Amino acid sequence: MKKSLGAKTLVYPTPVFVICTYDNEGNPNAMTAAWGGICCSSPPCIAVSLRKATYTYGNLMEKKAFTINIPSENYVREADYFGMVSGKKEDKFAKTGLTPVKSELVDAPYISEFPINIECKVLHVIEIGLHTQFIGEVMDAKIDETIQEKGDQPIIEQIKPLIFAPESRNYYAIGKQIAQGFSIGTEIG
Amino acid sequence: MKKSLGAKTLVYPTPVFVICTYDNEGNPNAMTAAWGGICCSSPPCIAVSLRKATYTYGNLMEKKAFTINIPSENYVREADYFGMVSGKKEDKFAKTGLTPVKSELVDAPYISEFPINIECKVLHVIEIGLHTQFIGEVMDAKIDETIQEKGDQPIIEQIKPLIFAPESRNYYAIGKQIAQGFSIGTEIG
Repeated sequence: MKKSLGAKTLVYPTPVFVICTYDNEGNPNAMTAAWGGICCSSPPCIAVSLRKATYTYGNLMEKKAFTINIPSENYVREADYFGMVSGKKEDKFAKTGLTPVKSELVDAPYISEFPINIECKVLHVIEIGLHTQFIGEVMDAKIDETIQEKGDQPIIEQIKPLIFAPESRNYYAIGKQIAQGFSIGTEIG
Repeated sequence: MKKSLGAKTLVYPTPVFVICTYDNEGNPNAMTAAWGGICCSSPPCIAVSLRKATYTYGNLMEKKAFTINIPSENYVREADYFGMVSGKKEDKFAKTGLTPVKSELVDAPYISEFPINIECKVLHVIEIGLHTQFIGEVMDAKIDETIQEKGDQPIIEQIKPLIFAPESRNYYAIGKQIAQGFSIGTEIG
């Protein structure tokens, strides 16, 4: 039997995306967003949703470019901080000591210390309600060169991405591998 | 130092959403989508992206309603199967033995055996490219009544949601809790 919890966005997992932009004076900013995900394979696109009140919203509307940076577990403090404080008030790169690197492909910085950086150009802006959704077309995906690949697949166990749980607002690690996709399902039918 | 992998949607984690719809004869269908995520808090909305070739695409365009069902780890076979086979060819509920329950709020079924069911009405349809994005407004979130809550927060360790890794296409479990959000970040600044 089921119980009703009301109209809540109660889905798991949500990602921990650190979104980096430049403001109109060229200052780098970083904010954390868990509302987002991949939204198209061709062109390769990722969506992130932000409130209009954020500093990043204004930067995105102006620059039409951003990067998505995936923090590893050992940057959970920085990821959480980026989501708590506004770039209107603080220089978040100075406070954390993390390094913004100017992308050569889009007008946005990425975070040197994070294992994955995705460089995006804004393709669509969709007003939904409290949040505005930005659909970014991926120009390039970069990973730390210390991360070994299996075939051409980066190894998630080395990336150690964070998972965010809505409602409880806790961060989790990636757990054990359970099964191979597009494979275990063949046991049915 | 970073190495470039090209224009890929290389972000972790992605969810395992099982999307349920009715076709125009009232037959229930289920498909698995990893391209999606929360996109707005108010109204509460979740986005899922599907290829036009899927059976679910036609159902969604017709019914403007769907449910998102979160499988627990022990349903990884069914979740994978739902993503491999088209509802045009097979009755996936019959094959898996899972139980479709008619939602009282939207014109779509949900899966009785899965721990979380989110009932949605289609609010926006956004053509991006290979994938079309459906933004669904959440009408209700239901959880299995055996899942305990801490305060009003369902306990993710009991839900045991799946995580999907793009590129390698492996399924993972949720790992250990690392930190409390909107808390650990206060250690900075």
